[in-house]
Amino acid sequence: MNTYVVGHQNPDTDSICAAITYANLKQELGKEVEAIRIGKVNSETEFVLDKFDIEAPRLVEEVSADDEIILVDHNEKSQAIAGIEEAEVKEIIDHHRIGDIETGNPIYFRNEPVGSTCTVIAKLYQENDVELTDDMAGLLLSAILSDTVIFRSPTCTVTDEKIANRLAEQLGVEIEEYGKKLFKAGSVVNKLSPRELVQNDYKEYEFAGETIGVGQIEVMDVAEVEGIKDEIITASEKLVAENDYKFLILMVTDILAEGSLLLFTPGAEKTVGEAFDVEVDRSEVYLDGVLSRKKQIIPVLSDYLTT
Amino acid sequence: MNTYVVGHQNPDTDSICAAITYANLKQELGKEVEAIRIGKVNSETEFVLDKFDIEAPRLVEEVSADDEIILVDHNEKSQAIAGIEEAEVKEIIDHHRIGDIETGNPIYFRNEPVGSTCTVIAKLYQENDVELTDDMAGLLLSAILSDTVIFRSPTCTVTDEKIANRLAEQLGVEIEEYGKKLFKAGSVVNKLSPRELVQNDYKEYEFAGETIGVGQIEVMDVAEVEGIKDEIITASEKLVAENDYKFLILMVTDILAEGSLLLFTPGAEKTVGEAFDVEVDRSEVYLDGVLSRKKQIIPVLSDYLTT
Repeated sequence: MNTYVVGHQNPDTDSICAAITYANLKQELGKEVEAIRIGKVNSETEFVLDKFDIEAPRLVEEVSADDEIILVDHNEKSQAIAGIEEAEVKEIIDHHRIGDIETGNPIYFRNEPVGSTCTVIAKLYQENDVELTDDMAGLLLSAILSDTVIFRSPTCTVTDEKIANRLAEQLGVEIEEYGKKLFKAGSVVNKLSPRELVQNDYKEYEFAGETIGVGQIEVMDVAEVEGIKDEIITASEKLVAENDYKFLILMVTDILAEGSLLLFTPGAEKTVGEAFDVEVDRSEVYLDGVLSRKKQIIPVLSDYLTT
Repeated sequence: MNTYVVGHQNPDTDSICAAITYANLKQELGKEVEAIRIGKVNSETEFVLDKFDIEAPRLVEEVSADDEIILVDHNEKSQAIAGIEEAEVKEIIDHHRIGDIETGNPIYFRNEPVGSTCTVIAKLYQENDVELTDDMAGLLLSAILSDTVIFRSPTCTVTDEKIANRLAEQLGVEIEEYGKKLFKAGSVVNKLSPRELVQNDYKEYEFAGETIGVGQIEVMDVAEVEGIKDEIITASEKLVAENDYKFLILMVTDILAEGSLLLFTPGAEKTVGEAFDVEVDRSEVYLDGVLSRKKQIIPVLSDYLTT
C-alpha cells in the first residue's frame, strides 16, 4: 500500500512544490507518504528545485486499487492522475473551485480561496506546530510568487502576501527581485515549440457536455509571441482535431502589463466575443487586467456555455 | 443579498448547533450572516436549545439566486436546501464523504474525518482566536456528544473527545451524565408515529441511478421498538411507493448495546444479506457493533450497489 501526494497533470510550480512540502509535513507528523508527479517539470519549477537543492518528485503515471492518494492543487478528475477512480482519495488540499471528486468515506478536504495551494500548506505547518526548514520555506515562497504572479493576480489575497513575506524574511530573500528571476527562468517562448507552448500549463474543462482546452503562458512582454502567433493557432487547431474539443484558447499573460492576449482556434470567436463582451479580431483579443485563468476566464466561459 | 448558514434536511442536533455556532463565529469576525434551518427541530435538539437558552434558527425552506449559503454538516445536493442550484455556495464546513456539490469559484471547504461538524467548528473558533461563550460551548458539546453517541460511535476520534472534554470543563458538565439526559430527551419511540420515526433523521442516497432511503433512530434499548416493527415496515413501504425508492432501511441503533437493528422494506433482503454478509430474517437483521450510518452502512451499500 503506497500513499502518494500528487498534483495535477501538466504540473506547475505550485503543484510540484505543494506535493513535496505536504509530503514533508506528513512525514514530519509520522506518516509514510511519497510525493510524486504526473508530468514533466517545467523550466520555472526546475529553477526553483535547483535553487533550494531539492530533487523532483518521482514520475508516476498511473495509480491502482492498492494505492492511496492525497491530491494537492486540484480536485477535478479530468486534471488528476490516471487510475484515480480505482485508488482511494485520502485527502485534498487545494485552492480551486469545487470539482467532481466524490468519496465513499469522510476525508480531510481543505480548500481555501487563496492564491496558491502552498499558502494553505504553510498554514498547515503552523497549525501542526511543525517548523519550516529553509528548503521547504523556499519551495513554498516560490510557489506562492509563481501562482500569484508576484502578488499581481486577482486571486492573490492578504493571506498569501502575509505568508510569503514571512517566508521571505526567514530566507532573507527580496521578493520582487527573486520573483522576476523566477518568471524569467520560466519564460518558455524561446525554449518550446508552438505545440509545447500551448501544452505547457494546460487544462481541459467540460461545459454542457463539450470539452474545451485552455493553456496559459506567462511572459514579461506579450510582444514575445508576435512572430509565432500563426504557428500557435495551427498547433492549437491540431490539438482541437485530435481531442475533439469545442475549441482551444491560449492565454499569453503579460505579467508586467497585467493583461492577457487570448489566442484561440476558429469557432471560438463568438463565445469569446459574447462571453467577455469584446470585439475580437479573427483569432485573438487582448483583455486588459485579466491575469487569472481560474478566476477571470473559466467562470466567464462556464457562465456563458452552461446557461 | 442574504448569507445563510444552513444544515441538512431533517436536521439533527449537529446540523442545528453547527448552523448557530458557525453563524456566531462569522458574526464575531464581522460578517453579516444568519443561521437558518430547513426542517423541524427534533426533541433532542429542543432539549439542548432550552438548556442553553438559545432560540432555534429561523425556518427558511428555499433559497434563490439572490442568496449566498454556507453549508454545514452536509455537502450533497440531495440533502441540501431547495434552490441550492440557484444560490451561491460560499463555504462548506462538514465531516462527511465528499459529495456532488460543484462551484464556479474557489470557496472555503473544510471537511474533516471527525465525529461531528461541531468539532471542526470548535477548532475554527480556536484558529480564529474567538473566545467561546458558555452558550456556544454548550451547543458545541451537545452536538459532539449527540453525533458521536457519547464517544461510542466508530466515527468518534481523539480530536472529538479532546475538544468535548475541554468544553465540558469550561461548562462544569459531567459528560456521561449529561449525554444520557440528552439521548433520553431525544428518544422518539413513544413520541412519534411510525412514519415520523422513519423520517426523524432521514437521508436519501443515489446509487447507480436508483434512490434508497436510510433513516436512523437511537434508543437506549432496541426492545423499545418490539411492539411496533410491523407498523414501521408498513410506513416505510408507503414511503418507498410515494418516492419510487429501490428500498428503505430504518436503523434502530441501541446506544448502550452498541449495535443496530435494521428494519427494511421487502426487496432489500438480498442487498442487505449479501452486502453485510449476514443471514436476514424476513425484514430485519441485527448488526452488532454497527452504530454509524455514514461509516458502516452507506459505504457498504455504495460498494455493493455500484460495483
